[in-house]
Amino acid sequence: MIVVKGGVTAAKGFLANGVKAGIKKSGRKDLALLYSEVPCAAAASFTTNRFEASPVKVSRLHIKSKMHQAIIVNSGNANCASGKDGDSKAARMAASAAKAMDLARHEILVASTGIIGVPLPVERIEKSMAGLVRGLSKRGAGEFAETIMTTDTVPKEFAVKVKLGSSIVTIGGACKGVGMVYPAMKTERHATMLAFLATDASISKRMLEEALTEAVADSFNMISVDGDMSTNDTCFILANGLAGNEKITKKDRHYIEFVKALKFLSSNLARMLAADGEGATKLVEIKVTGAGSKEDAAVVARKISTSNLLKCAIFGEDPNWGRVAAACGSAGVDFDPDKTDIYLGGMKALSNGAIAKGYSKDRARKFFKTKTVQITVDLKSGKHSATAWTCDFSKEYVAINSEYST
Amino acid sequence: MIVVKGGVTAAKGFLANGVKAGIKKSGRKDLALLYSEVPCAAAASFTTNRFEASPVKVSRLHIKSKMHQAIIVNSGNANCASGKDGDSKAARMAASAAKAMDLARHEILVASTGIIGVPLPVERIEKSMAGLVRGLSKRGAGEFAETIMTTDTVPKEFAVKVKLGSSIVTIGGACKGVGMVYPAMKTERHATMLAFLATDASISKRMLEEALTEAVADSFNMISVDGDMSTNDTCFILANGLAGNEKITKKDRHYIEFVKALKFLSSNLARMLAADGEGATKLVEIKVTGAGSKEDAAVVARKISTSNLLKCAIFGEDPNWGRVAAACGSAGVDFDPDKTDIYLGGMKALSNGAIAKGYSKDRARKFFKTKTVQITVDLKSGKHSATAWTCDFSKEYVAINSEYST
Repeated sequence: MIVVKGGVTAAKGFLANGVKAGIKKSGRKDLALLYSEVPCAAAASFTTNRFEASPVKVSRLHIKSKMHQAIIVNSGNANCASGKDGDSKAARMAASAAKAMDLARHEILVASTGIIGVPLPVERIEKSMAGLVRGLSKRGAGEFAETIMTTDTVPKEFAVKVKLGSSIVTIGGACKGVGMVYPAMKTERHATMLAFLATDASISKRMLEEALTEAVADSFNMISVDGDMSTNDTCFILANGLAGNEKITKKDRHYIEFVKALKFLSSNLARMLAADGEGATKLVEIKVTGAGSKEDAAVVARKISTSNLLKCAIFGEDPNWGRVAAACGSAGVDFDPDKTDIYLGGMKALSNGAIAKGYSKDRARKFFKTKTVQITVDLKSGKHSATAWTCDFSKEYVAINSEYST
Repeated sequence: MIVVKGGVTAAKGFLANGVKAGIKKSGRKDLALLYSEVPCAAAASFTTNRFEASPVKVSRLHIKSKMHQAIIVNSGNANCASGKDGDSKAARMAASAAKAMDLARHEILVASTGIIGVPLPVERIEKSMAGLVRGLSKRGAGEFAETIMTTDTVPKEFAVKVKLGSSIVTIGGACKGVGMVYPAMKTERHATMLAFLATDASISKRMLEEALTEAVADSFNMISVDGDMSTNDTCFILANGLAGNEKITKKDRHYIEFVKALKFLSSNLARMLAADGEGATKLVEIKVTGAGSKEDAAVVARKISTSNLLKCAIFGEDPNWGRVAAACGSAGVDFDPDKTDIYLGGMKALSNGAIAKGYSKDRARKFFKTKTVQITVDLKSGKHSATAWTCDFSKEYVAINSEYST
């Protein structure tokens, strides 16, 4: 497996573009399109929020089709909590894209991100569609990654190549965060985190769904910026088969290799999201080991990653690891606190539930001064582990989010 | 029922005091004592955090005794995550108080609040005990309420008188917050929210436990400052029987009256905690109605009350009610978003899942400018309701919590 350039269009046959449709008040680009030259197997993971946005409803319906060829995305408006008017506008987005590319409506997937509860100016999207399609190109990956941004400060793209048998398969991706990020997506049947993955692998829809579920569980579903689950979280993957590998139809060696590459790609994109969290100055990596089950490990890691108090301490470079213990104990998972160890970077702070011998607050402070803060909790009650990612909690976070809609 | 002055010593036979033991770096008062002139029935509600503090462990053991007569409390140090050393120090606190008042150790309940993972200087507590006991007085309620404060900006006390039959029963209370506040306490068998309630009612221990459970569920367990559950949350109630009412031993008319008064007292104290949340500029009241069950209503109300995004919007007086919808939908409770209404103060913003007719952002902004922001979500799928309290999320919150331990 090697890391390559090219982002969401790194794989064969994918084109992308992004334009200004006039949805964002800032006047920045806000309408993006990802297109495959040939039909694709597709899989999707959507938010589990009961208030799901209209584009999620439409995509949930469309993903049931066998083949897909394009994804239309707007930023600046979530098209959520707008009732039937919102639903019909999401459908119009898909219809407009289909018409411009001479495809069927159900071959188009839809995603939106931005403010909730404000009517989507869909006419602007329809007016911009012809230009958007005309501008599709291999080099459009950068435009795509930039266009889907909301409060993101940098575009996020990644791509890898992996050998499956005698074929080289490429997987590319782009994603955006960076607020209302605490995804808990379920495949087909689940931020505003949006992630778009595109591969030239030949793989059945069923196996693509399995692969996406596995990859999302260890990556996008393990990040938090603010602990607020979005109504619009979506991760799509398109697979167009142009790599010419022997088609993956079961969980064989090639499937395992493909999932490994997909997880690596997804984790890298997920880390980028956490690192660029609203107001973030640091990336925080929380590893929980020695848990009784994978789920327990994930629940504890996620609980610690959503501790406002810990995130503030990290912003202040204050090694107040007691907040790690408190968050750990509040996860609703059973473990023995008297056996638990906590590490700050490489230094033990808590040993068997008590302050570790040799613990030095001055040394601890050094670990909190690094750009990536690593915290490990060893529950010593099993063999399972999980890693969650978050960012620190800064005054800038409050500034960004107290002035968002006005 | 009438509201009276007197705080935690408003009921007959209770004395209190608070002194400087040298635990707080600030040099403020940090050791408090509540004492009843006669033995009391007692009940307690403790944190459900797996990392429970040593004073919680000791009090869990002591509460099994039939009668209690005093509560010793220190602020400035949580005595948590300190292993067996912490446990023995919590026991020494109780033993020292017992000795100074000539009581048995198990008659003393213990509570601590402050930083986690720093050894408790218990010797200072022991040295201060004689003076603390000597200074016990009816007028000591104010000292008590002030001494238990950590990042609290104001002391919190409340008291009520209620008529039970021909007797007048008084219930007084004091509490502190105001960070790491997201209690989920269980009676005997569970903030650092600490609350101390004292009544002269005559009531059996069993009925006192029931009454405390009911009162905590609708008050302290419905508040959040930061969504971080503490290792030290404790609510104690002492009942010394000096009011001379007919002893409450079953769920009769007098029990119902007593619980009503206790709930009123607890809710008022809980609101004070939320209003004084770290960095808070506003009190936020979230009411969920029309839920299928009381539990569903409480879960949704609490979920909305912990939305960082909503809390930032309220700080910014930005009526971004889409964040209410998103939080509501992420609570894991089943309801129909297409039937859901959201009210900001008295104005409907969302009606049957869509933007309400007549909704005006300018009017909405006015509701967000009030000192107490009221948000109501009507799920229209049942008859149950619940109210949760929180505060807004300010830059000051981040400042307070990025510099806490240093």
